[in-house]
Amino acid sequence: VIYALDLFGTSVFAVSGAMAAGRKRMDLFGLIVVATVTGLGGGTLRDVILGVRPVFWVADYNYIAVTTTTAMLTFVVGRVLQLHPTVLLVADAFGLAVFTAIGAQRAADCGAPAPIVMLMGVTTGVAGGMVRDVLCGEIPLVLRKEIYATASFLGALVFVFLSGLGFGRVPVLSVSIVAVLAVRLAAIRWGLSLPVYSLEGAARARSRPDDAA
Amino acid sequence: VIYALDLFGTSVFAVSGAMAAGRKRMDLFGLIVVATVTGLGGGTLRDVILGVRPVFWVADYNYIAVTTTTAMLTFVVGRVLQLHPTVLLVADAFGLAVFTAIGAQRAADCGAPAPIVMLMGVTTGVAGGMVRDVLCGEIPLVLRKEIYATASFLGALVFVFLSGLGFGRVPVLSVSIVAVLAVRLAAIRWGLSLPVYSLEGAARARSRPDDAA
Amino acid sequence: VIYALDLFGTSVFAVSGAMAAGRKRMDLFGLIVVATVTGLGGGTLRDVILGVRPVFWVADYNYIAVTTTTAMLTFVVGRVLQLHPTVLLVADAFGLAVFTAIGAQRAADCGAPAPIVMLMGVTTGVAGGMVRDVLCGEIPLVLRKEIYATASFLGALVFVFLSGLGFGRVPVLSVSIVAVLAVRLAAIRWGLSLPVYSLEGAARARSRPDDAA
Repeated sequence: VIYALDLFGTSVFAVSGAMAAGRKRMDLFGLIVVATVTGLGGGTLRDVILGVRPVFWVADYNYIAVTTTTAMLTFVVGRVLQLHPTVLLVADAFGLAVFTAIGAQRAADCGAPAPIVMLMGVTTGVAGGMVRDVLCGEIPLVLRKEIYATASFLGALVFVFLSGLGFGRVPVLSVSIVAVLAVRLAAIRWGLSLPVYSLEGAARARSRPDDAA
Repeated sequence: VIYALDLFGTSVFAVSGAMAAGRKRMDLFGLIVVATVTGLGGGTLRDVILGVRPVFWVADYNYIAVTTTTAMLTFVVGRVLQLHPTVLLVADAFGLAVFTAIGAQRAADCGAPAPIVMLMGVTTGVAGGMVRDVLCGEIPLVLRKEIYATASFLGALVFVFLSGLGFGRVPVLSVSIVAVLAVRLAAIRWGLSLPVYSLEGAARARSRPDDAA
Repeated sequence: VIYALDLFGTSVFAVSGAMAAGRKRMDLFGLIVVATVTGLGGGTLRDVILGVRPVFWVADYNYIAVTTTTAMLTFVVGRVLQLHPTVLLVADAFGLAVFTAIGAQRAADCGAPAPIVMLMGVTTGVAGGMVRDVLCGEIPLVLRKEIYATASFLGALVFVFLSGLGFGRVPVLSVSIVAVLAVRLAAIRWGLSLPVYSLEGAARARSRPDDAA
């Protein structure tokens, strides 16, 4: 089940990568590259930092098959997806939740201490989207959108907390996933956001992060 | 011979990095950094992902010597090179071909399965140029220019196919290099390109990727 | 003492990352991410390339604590820091000096040859700032500002030279740190810069790198 969720999360992130690339008028190959980097980037960075050899998608190339196929499908039906932005947002929240929990689990399996487990959960969840935005020539949206990485952070906190209490693998993963999902969906639903750092006092009152985006 | 080709490919890529940096009015050190990253980036990413230790240019620092020297030469004679853009394009096609074949070979030597061998060939060929463009504040050109990464992909396919048939190291490398070169030079000569993903149906008919570049 | 200097350098770089993120109107989490990447990025790249496992901040998570705390403090008192840009510049020069020397030392401890030791010193010193600028959607300033990476390079050269003469760990580190500091502070004080590569002969005479920045 975890494995199926992981592949689903990968394909959701790949769709977001392919659509971002499409918005920049890249060709089919560009879509495949950005989709692959978005889907696998977070986990790759995690494995490289933890020193896991070989990186997960070298050992199991279903992952590459998923991102490539997804990018080609998006190339064909991307316009339909655009008509359902909410479906995409919810699917993306789901991907974030799954990646965060699996990333934390992977770090815990390597015997990493709690702060690293949390950081690796967040890294797995958000790094793919950050590289996607950099490749598309934009400032990573996850750094200034409504509660996004923060949802991932809270989920990682739940993971560490429940693991510390001695709960088993399945309940810890499930509750963490639900926690990320709940926070992220609430943020989407009610437009919640963290305070923005402002250089001028007056500007802070007037503007919203969305303006700058 | 392979080694000489590899160093030549490195220096060609370093020239392209140094010239891109020069266009952004970087100083001499900026040229050296961007040239080095462009020339060594693809192979470094490949070695890190495959878990090869140490990375190739740590083991043999002729590579750094080549990129540094090339950047300094480009600083001096860059204006001459600009007068011969076709020479640069052909040299770059050559670098792409050599890097793709050598990248695939390196992955195969690590015992990687066919899909990973192909991906590592393409990564070695195009990642350096992608990082170059990101450092210069632009959307990577390889993601939307005429057939570029696609040429690399086809060469990697040829590599895997011929290896699978049991051919030896030399013929496999040679034919892959020739395949990438042929596809890439044809794309340059006749301006071939892949279809571009378009968000509006009408726009797809009207515009060309070049317009967006 | 070295360890204390290293943590101080990390926190100085984290401040520069948090302030760059603030200028782009990122939220609190964005500040933490950019501060962490700026503070730890150079050393992480060094460790990954050298094959050191695990990366330094996985083994000792004081580093993450420092960058996170620093980012939160900057979020609160950033406006005060802006009033003292010179303090920040000097502190940053100090961070550059410490990171260069420690990076070179780390490479030397791995038994790397002289050119790699130098490159790892420079990488540790400047890579964090480069990733910071890319995440903030800008061309890395270190590639075109007044003597910055060049100061790091000269310090790394001093390190290799003194090590080669057989001096001990402490004098080599101290003299390298002082060398970087001296060059960098002189460059700040008198606005020194390297020549800029120019595409048109006339433009070279007229313009300054600052214009293009």
